[in-house]
Amino acid sequence: MRVFSDKKIIDSWRKNAAPWIVAIQENQIESRRLITDQAIIDRVMSLPAKNVLDIGCGEGWLARKLTPSGLSVTGLDVVPELVQEAKKSATGKFHVMAYEELSVSKVSEKFDVAICNFSLLGKESVEHLFKVVRGMLNKDGYFIVQTLHPSFSDEHYAYEDGWREGSWTGFRSEFSDPAPWYFRTIESWLRLFREHGYGLVHLKEPISPATGNVASLIMVGRVSR
Amino acid sequence: MRVFSDKKIIDSWRKNAAPWIVAIQENQIESRRLITDQAIIDRVMSLPAKNVLDIGCGEGWLARKLTPSGLSVTGLDVVPELVQEAKKSATGKFHVMAYEELSVSKVSEKFDVAICNFSLLGKESVEHLFKVVRGMLNKDGYFIVQTLHPSFSDEHYAYEDGWREGSWTGFRSEFSDPAPWYFRTIESWLRLFREHGYGLVHLKEPISPATGNVASLIMVGRVSR
Repeated sequence: MRVFSDKKIIDSWRKNAAPWIVAIQENQIESRRLITDQAIIDRVMSLPAKNVLDIGCGEGWLARKLTPSGLSVTGLDVVPELVQEAKKSATGKFHVMAYEELSVSKVSEKFDVAICNFSLLGKESVEHLFKVVRGMLNKDGYFIVQTLHPSFSDEHYAYEDGWREGSWTGFRSEFSDPAPWYFRTIESWLRLFREHGYGLVHLKEPISPATGNVASLIMVGRVSR
Repeated sequence: MRVFSDKKIIDSWRKNAAPWIVAIQENQIESRRLITDQAIIDRVMSLPAKNVLDIGCGEGWLARKLTPSGLSVTGLDVVPELVQEAKKSATGKFHVMAYEELSVSKVSEKFDVAICNFSLLGKESVEHLFKVVRGMLNKDGYFIVQTLHPSFSDEHYAYEDGWREGSWTGFRSEFSDPAPWYFRTIESWLRLFREHGYGLVHLKEPISPATGNVASLIMVGRVSR
């Protein structure tokens, strides 16, 4: 039976933590290796930031990339195995935390930039996140989201928000039980930013040099005054 | 020989003015009839506007739709036959003018809203337009562009800015010599708004109720203070 829920996403990721750590640390995912890793790093480095909140930090690769430039990174992830790996392999503060638990009282520090790098896959959890992140940012803070580009999604679906089945196509056989994900149109993503008090200061469509196709969508919101 | 230039666009449209007037007045274009006409009208009507500059107004249909609600419309188009028809069939001030000629000194009135409804097809002409429109807007003015949605374009092309061949597929046989057009990615469109002093206050992806597919892209910029 297909289960489409925010909780099911977490269940799936907990099952796949071990092969995910290997996939990231061995650079197995071509689109990340060739395009999207550098795209998110460039975006962060273009901002006047000293500290960063990495929401859905996984096993810590982004912290490993950012801290050598002097950025201080705090990472959050709901999967204990990934946070444990981040603590071991990266410099920064890493905490096990579900998006639903996130609140200003839980994270007392204020950040220059919050980042969600391919880590916004749910429905209610994402809406909750947008509600609380602004309170964790400094008054000129930025919120960066990199995600699948909605316009180049599966053509079998209508172009509208909704749950979709996950897939590990292209990944190694160790992966199982792919997480479902909640599709959002570009209009819907930008509405989330607007309605939660961000002005869109940048929208980037990183292109694969190999194929000429779009590899992802990056949106940068700045706290509106 | 394929000619890709802003001038060629005008040449083609002059040739097709007569069938275009018929196509619009007979409601021949399904996507306009079912989706995109109402989408642009709704967008304009949602703004606190009294007067509107309709850039690339064609034969005046948008003026015919907006003036009954009390909006005052000024329309510009480079094709004399279309402006002549607009003067005949719509209420408003209509002028023959190429985008390249447009300047604050030529249009002394200030507008609450400038609209380009499927009328930004060129390269340099569009860049010029973005440079001058802001000076024609009131300080809380809006610039609305409706255009083809870039992400659902011809898959044979790489996803990057560039000239593309035109087509009259789906139109009646009276149409000839289709105009080329300059493709822009979403990133590129939003950069035009940002770099010319607009904050993006709305992005809309009107959907066909029949197919679930995206019919166009509407962007609304507001003059940044």
